[in-house]
Amino acid sequence: MMKVQIIGIGLIGGSFALDIKSAFPEGEIYGIDADEKNLKKAKELGIIDHFSKMEDVQHADVVLVAVPVDVANKVVVEVLDLAGENTLVFDAGSTKSGLCKEIANHQNRRNFLAAHPIAGTEFSGPEAAIPNLYRNKTNIICEVEKTAFKLQERALDIFQKLGMRIRYMDPVSHDRHIAYVSHLSHISSFMLGKTVLEKERNERDIFDLAGSGFASTVRLAKSSPAMWSPIFKENKENVLETLTEYINNLTHFKDLLENDDFQEVYNEMQRTNHIKSILNGIN
Amino acid sequence: MMKVQIIGIGLIGGSFALDIKSAFPEGEIYGIDADEKNLKKAKELGIIDHFSKMEDVQHADVVLVAVPVDVANKVVVEVLDLAGENTLVFDAGSTKSGLCKEIANHQNRRNFLAAHPIAGTEFSGPEAAIPNLYRNKTNIICEVEKTAFKLQERALDIFQKLGMRIRYMDPVSHDRHIAYVSHLSHISSFMLGKTVLEKERNERDIFDLAGSGFASTVRLAKSSPAMWSPIFKENKENVLETLTEYINNLTHFKDLLENDDFQEVYNEMQRTNHIKSILNGIN
Repeated sequence: MMKVQIIGIGLIGGSFALDIKSAFPEGEIYGIDADEKNLKKAKELGIIDHFSKMEDVQHADVVLVAVPVDVANKVVVEVLDLAGENTLVFDAGSTKSGLCKEIANHQNRRNFLAAHPIAGTEFSGPEAAIPNLYRNKTNIICEVEKTAFKLQERALDIFQKLGMRIRYMDPVSHDRHIAYVSHLSHISSFMLGKTVLEKERNERDIFDLAGSGFASTVRLAKSSPAMWSPIFKENKENVLETLTEYINNLTHFKDLLENDDFQEVYNEMQRTNHIKSILNGIN
Repeated sequence: MMKVQIIGIGLIGGSFALDIKSAFPEGEIYGIDADEKNLKKAKELGIIDHFSKMEDVQHADVVLVAVPVDVANKVVVEVLDLAGENTLVFDAGSTKSGLCKEIANHQNRRNFLAAHPIAGTEFSGPEAAIPNLYRNKTNIICEVEKTAFKLQERALDIFQKLGMRIRYMDPVSHDRHIAYVSHLSHISSFMLGKTVLEKERNERDIFDLAGSGFASTVRLAKSSPAMWSPIFKENKENVLETLTEYINNLTHFKDLLENDDFQEVYNEMQRTNHIKSILNGIN
């Protein structure tokens, strides 16, 4: 019987719980959450089998840490302190450098696998957990060579049964790349939402005039601040770099409009259309 | 038999053609397009029944002008010059002030209905035309009182059969509101795409790391420059205002990050989360 302990039973942890239960019918899911209400809800929904405590880590075969990234850095250390020789510990956070540095010299470093499944929705909490969230999604694994071979195998077996594609990457590159393709999108979306909300006091007008294009662009502005504020903190330098470039590009576009250079406005958009061929691979 | 002439057989005109043919089986669709290849394709695909010329306008019951907004301003005048007493002319452009001003004193002003169906996809051309594009979508009508009552009725009959909701608005308010909920989204998306493309020369990395969140935020960057460059030109003042506010909001967010004010970063996002309840109405 595989004992799986999940710390943080929200969208990410809860969805892992659901898929692991399907893939490993003999598995037992133990849940921990800082929010008592979330935890009870997760049990009610059948996402976890048992309530659990940090001390139970030592008896677990697999521990998933799925809490906001600033908390994760501390929790992973706590979990590694308690981990048994055969306990696989992995995380699912959106930043990897700080965490990998934090635990670099931990005596149980080899129990840990640093992972970032590129999957999620704009919703949060155990009610947001859904089956097959991870199917056909990319899972980025950092510093795989630092994880015990036997535990790598166990992790890959789980990821494979959940239908994930694996990519290996060093944590510094991960954080730089993900700032562009994920973190910046969230800021652009939140600030777009803010700009429109500020202007359009009369919500009825937004509702009536907004089409699916606006809904799509602003979708990420529904995301959880409790999850995203720590991500921006952890990945501050990279995020600032992407944000600066984004603001520069917007300012350049604004200059073109102000100077009535619509030929170059056209060219800017046409060059960016090239993103079509890249996006065809996603979704 | 209703003779419907459609000038500009792309996504918008072509989708109208498909739905009008379904709703009015006795209707005949006549097509005009500046691009000979588009026109032939539209005929091949069965979107139009006949090729047609500007002179045929005088025999048409309904003329839809669905060309880029800068061209539309000229084409609508040409069409009104030729319109018979009972010809309904309407457009589908994303800007309304310039057009309404352009034709304000035209002797056949009463033949014209200024319309903006809030519908579309990021694709273009006759191959992008789809049935039911307009079902349950909002159609904004400007200066309805300037259209002959009988022709208003004919237009509303068509829009109703296509499943659209009608909203009346003056053209100046329309252009201001739509700058926020549509035009700005396109710029934010194009510049997001540009920022990521510039940075990530290795496309394989984008593909592997980007999730559905990025795809959603950058979707509008696939849109047609030939359609959007004229919209930004026509609505330049409003677009510049929204873009300035957007850049200010992004710069403020950047300042918060630089000053490590993550509590306020959290607050900014939480306040914007409120957009959830508004978006629930869309899609």
